[in-house]
Amino acid sequence: MSSTELTLRPFFWRATKLFPEKEVVSRGPDGMTHYTYREFGERARKLAGALSSLGVEPGDRVGTVGWNTHRHYEAYFAIPLMGAQLHTINAVLPDDHVEYIVEDAGDEVLLVDPGEPFETIERLWDRFDGVRELVVMDDEVPDTDLDCVTDYESFVADADPMEWPGLSEEQPAGMCYTSGTTGKPKGVEYTQKMMYSHSMMVATPSALGVDESDVVMHVVPMYHVNSWELPFSAAMAGAKQVYPGPSPDAETLARLIEEEEVTLTAGVPTVWINLLDYLDDHDADISSLERIVVGGSAAPSAVMRRFEDEHDVTIEHAWGMTETMSIGSVSRPKTGMREWDRAERFEKRTKQGLLSPGMEMKLVGDDGEEVPWDGEAAGELYVRGPTVVSEYYNRPEANRGSFEDGWLKTGDIAVVDEDGYLELVDRVKDVIKSGGEWISSIELENALMEHDDVLEAAVIGVPHERWQERPVACIQPKPEASLTGDDVLAFLEESYPRWWLPDNVVFVEEVPKTATGKFDKKRLRDQYGDADLPHTPGGSEKADGERNDGADR
Amino acid sequence: MSSTELTLRPFFWRATKLFPEKEVVSRGPDGMTHYTYREFGERARKLAGALSSLGVEPGDRVGTVGWNTHRHYEAYFAIPLMGAQLHTINAVLPDDHVEYIVEDAGDEVLLVDPGEPFETIERLWDRFDGVRELVVMDDEVPDTDLDCVTDYESFVADADPMEWPGLSEEQPAGMCYTSGTTGKPKGVEYTQKMMYSHSMMVATPSALGVDESDVVMHVVPMYHVNSWELPFSAAMAGAKQVYPGPSPDAETLARLIEEEEVTLTAGVPTVWINLLDYLDDHDADISSLERIVVGGSAAPSAVMRRFEDEHDVTIEHAWGMTETMSIGSVSRPKTGMREWDRAERFEKRTKQGLLSPGMEMKLVGDDGEEVPWDGEAAGELYVRGPTVVSEYYNRPEANRGSFEDGWLKTGDIAVVDEDGYLELVDRVKDVIKSGGEWISSIELENALMEHDDVLEAAVIGVPHERWQERPVACIQPKPEASLTGDDVLAFLEESYPRWWLPDNVVFVEEVPKTATGKFDKKRLRDQYGDADLPHTPGGSEKADGERNDGADR
Repeated sequence: MSSTELTLRPFFWRATKLFPEKEVVSRGPDGMTHYTYREFGERARKLAGALSSLGVEPGDRVGTVGWNTHRHYEAYFAIPLMGAQLHTINAVLPDDHVEYIVEDAGDEVLLVDPGEPFETIERLWDRFDGVRELVVMDDEVPDTDLDCVTDYESFVADADPMEWPGLSEEQPAGMCYTSGTTGKPKGVEYTQKMMYSHSMMVATPSALGVDESDVVMHVVPMYHVNSWELPFSAAMAGAKQVYPGPSPDAETLARLIEEEEVTLTAGVPTVWINLLDYLDDHDADISSLERIVVGGSAAPSAVMRRFEDEHDVTIEHAWGMTETMSIGSVSRPKTGMREWDRAERFEKRTKQGLLSPGMEMKLVGDDGEEVPWDGEAAGELYVRGPTVVSEYYNRPEANRGSFEDGWLKTGDIAVVDEDGYLELVDRVKDVIKSGGEWISSIELENALMEHDDVLEAAVIGVPHERWQERPVACIQPKPEASLTGDDVLAFLEESYPRWWLPDNVVFVEEVPKTATGKFDKKRLRDQYGDADLPHTPGGSEKADGERNDGADR
Repeated sequence: MSSTELTLRPFFWRATKLFPEKEVVSRGPDGMTHYTYREFGERARKLAGALSSLGVEPGDRVGTVGWNTHRHYEAYFAIPLMGAQLHTINAVLPDDHVEYIVEDAGDEVLLVDPGEPFETIERLWDRFDGVRELVVMDDEVPDTDLDCVTDYESFVADADPMEWPGLSEEQPAGMCYTSGTTGKPKGVEYTQKMMYSHSMMVATPSALGVDESDVVMHVVPMYHVNSWELPFSAAMAGAKQVYPGPSPDAETLARLIEEEEVTLTAGVPTVWINLLDYLDDHDADISSLERIVVGGSAAPSAVMRRFEDEHDVTIEHAWGMTETMSIGSVSRPKTGMREWDRAERFEKRTKQGLLSPGMEMKLVGDDGEEVPWDGEAAGELYVRGPTVVSEYYNRPEANRGSFEDGWLKTGDIAVVDEDGYLELVDRVKDVIKSGGEWISSIELENALMEHDDVLEAAVIGVPHERWQERPVACIQPKPEASLTGDDVLAFLEESYPRWWLPDNVVFVEEVPKTATGKFDKKRLRDQYGDADLPHTPGGSEKADGERNDGADR
């Protein structure tokens, strides 16, 4: 029996006591900040002291709306370790979402970055009931009419550093909202124990593997599931950390990698595609970089290959959700696969990979029965584990469809191959159910985006009298490209059976996106869902601005 | 909030579901067993089913007395996952200890290896009140008069494989006894949560770092704090495992490393010194081996150097206790130290190192105040964390001196340097208090054992009228060596102040050992503690078979 609870305190202790000279580096509008874990620790304790003077008590929620900076990182430890709850708020959500999220969480104090985040909060100020105070994460207060605003540096300067209190491991320590394409954002709470467990798991080589010798650059926004919890794992390991500040472009990232000798970083594919393009035309030494963990969506395999061939950097696919505290699986070839040829290895590496330690999964078919792991059969992915939430905050109606007997129903349609590699083939709501079979909209999209003339492609299912649903492809061609629907279908036909081919190919100026940057298929379905489709899959009816191609199933 | 408890189940799931083809290799008296995690999992489920048929229920304790084999490993998961408690019993303890331990724990069933372990249990059978049944971990029952003995293979053969029940993370899952040099052995219990947390921590690169690509050979006996919990971490990671069976000699270990391509192993220094000697005279390819983790006592730095120079193997010092579930710190140079010269790096590497993630420590002096981390000041090491026990089983009187405000008082005297590296300098009960200063008996012993003619050396404190205590060295010279007390003192004088020099040098035929192989200082103190000592430290009085050397402080 142990009397010590699982909390974030020992991670703070380890970073500040065993690695007091290690650096935390942060990029701000006025230049770079370099300081040590020792200074970080002193400032985090003072931040907690200042929040306490403001009346923040254990159990209260403190919201943050900010970029990836050292001040934001101080809040990452200060708020949970004083017994309060760190609520990281997406800084680029629409106003209504921000309003809903802040009110729903009942945030009492907000730490807000200057610029856009501050402007958003200022604009919404009268709509907030519970927020008492704003702290601007800067050394001055922006021009404002609000009278309850302090700047972070003054706020912290004279505060008494807090000695961390003993905490229960069941104390909620974090809170994040997940925004679907429909409906209100849903909040989840992470306890101290969950954050301890997830950070420890992330640090194992079976997940990301974070070591003292790593230099970790956090490109995943700190409001995206706590930057995938890497800031906590990095502190635990005593790794040097780099916070690239607001909207880092490819040049900034390249420079930071070179100057700070970054070894490990993580983010969505777009960031790395931009970096790759930048490196084509510019000299930058990124030889320190060993691994990029990619999640959010899949990195095109061409990008993975180019990083490996041209820069000796390994791209590792990961999968996770807000409900799994981010990282839930990572894809790497197993030992025995090292002898495989490259194409075979890439086939594994482009999947979502092997479930992380501590978790368990199953695939459940339409009939509620488990689906075999044969690389073919698809089912909804169910996961469970100490890092998986068991409920949404304050949303009993959302819980009913999402949790079942201790399992989280992820809403993802997946296949698992004989080697245990997980591959997401679609969202439950996006999969196209055609004549009793499933067509993966994501697989078609990925295939389409491999076409040289396609910039983006979204595939939706539209109602069909005979086949129940049929695919329609919405394509944004590259500028200057001359692409026809026939070209598109011929291209797909090389790899897919005829009944998978879209019944319509629609060319759009831009694929609409949700607030988190995902394809907004709801809008596409609203727009193109009532197209009159042919009676045969792969059929040939025309619509305005559309192109079909006849094909029998 | 998560509804999933921290238990060993997901580790079993990960090994058997994601790595079903990975091998577990085991050496028995009749040869090698090679099988997969899939078969391992099936047999573990059947073992649980068989134990259940025998009436073992959640909360019951099942003892094991055995070597490092696949059958023992099956019990490692089967017993905790059925909700019972795995009580691993040291197979080489004196009869009275075994009797006490089995009775104190209330074991209902014992799994026992044939040979010596079975003979011990058979001999003690009439002294056990609670044990109902013996299962011999073999495919036949040894010749015996006992009628409640089954062999493991028959026991398991027809059993129904168990579906693991849901368990509370607070369910006790493991139990180990720690045997001091005095008094009764003391039991500690590990909950499911503690075993989950420790195995996860051990797998991080900040501790041992266990990856899927590792081949882990378990040389630490499975009755020594569950082989330092590595069997659980290895399953979680999906690593291949090698169990070297009863009493593996250096030749066996060398052969297993070569044949199974072992990358990581762990054990006490003696084992590796023997292996090094063996490799001097025999051809064996141990090139797969990357790391040996050494604990229990310190590996001589000469051994560390030779492994590195001659075999490209890194020896890593680790420290831990039964009360910390084994591994609590590991010594590796930090990133910045890689540029240091080798001697400086070795100075760090021969310490106990950096506390493992999740733990916290402090040094407490005689006056109850914290002692600074300056590489000089010594204090008793206090540790806490989710992998540190908070009490002894059923021993309130032992708890009083060992636990304080949530901290474990380790009984170790330690120094921490400016870089945060922990170094144990003595046991509280062995440190020699001379004239208000502390003399480390361990440091003198290690220094003495660097002498070419010294095989083993123990240093004890004996009562002294003026100085309170003074050191006496008990030395077992190497065979054929001609060593005098003068030689010994002259040797020490090169490195130590005169007041550290022993007042007596006693030559002994053999340094007496405790049941766990540590120097039995109690016996030495009983024997040599009343020697008439000189009145001056480093003084010059003679005793029978002893040799003193005059020196003023």
